[in-house]
Amino acid sequence: MARTGLPRNHWKMVLILRGELRMTPGKAVVQGAHAAVLLVAEAERRHRDWLEAWRQSGQAKIALQVETLEELETIRRKAIARGLPAVFVEDAGYTEVAPGTRTCLGVGPAPTSELDPLTGALELY
Amino acid sequence: MARTGLPRNHWKMVLILRGELRMTPGKAVVQGAHAAVLLVAEAERRHRDWLEAWRQSGQAKIALQVETLEELETIRRKAIARGLPAVFVEDAGYTEVAPGTRTCLGVGPAPTSELDPLTGALELY
Repeated sequence: MARTGLPRNHWKMVLILRGELRMTPGKAVVQGAHAAVLLVAEAERRHRDWLEAWRQSGQAKIALQVETLEELETIRRKAIARGLPAVFVEDAGYTEVAPGTRTCLGVGPAPTSELDPLTGALELY
Repeated sequence: MARTGLPRNHWKMVLILRGELRMTPGKAVVQGAHAAVLLVAEAERRHRDWLEAWRQSGQAKIALQVETLEELETIRRKAIARGLPAVFVEDAGYTEVAPGTRTCLGVGPAPTSELDPLTGALELY
């Protein structure tokens, strides 16, 4: 876990990819970018204060991974229960994966203290 | 070039990473996500019509690569000259790369006809 090398950010956005899909690096970049853009739109509607705090503190993002869709769904349920912005990316499936595949879950921006109980044990992507 | 497998999108966002930096997959995901979020903010200020057209057509994104910073700077100059949204991501350098390293150039969202002359010959990331 290389995260100890990161500065202490009080706000972050977490991009969680499914490692078992073995996406090409570029495919993974696109899924994470989809999630980040969707999260900003979601936060503009429901958590504008968190969005502004995150923007002003450097827009920290981190990419993590799970090995199964079930893990991703569990994290999403817990995030929603805590009132955190959370979005699935469903791939249109033109390349690499079947249409409708959930490739990535984005959570945040949110306080690190809210995110770490859900995602603090995940491996870096 | 696998892009022939993609549908014909009239609007897209292009995320161009520096292949020679040999970033970890997660680092690359974060750089691309930074670029995408910055581009949306830039387009909201200067190209709201393009942003809306892109959003409504599925928010297509593609991740490409160059081998040198000079190539990235050349593409940015040409993009600016054409009036396209273009942003550099400069990494804070806590991990993997030196502080201030330009890791990624984002261009768009814009019509494919505007982007392809600048980025159509690049390899997928």
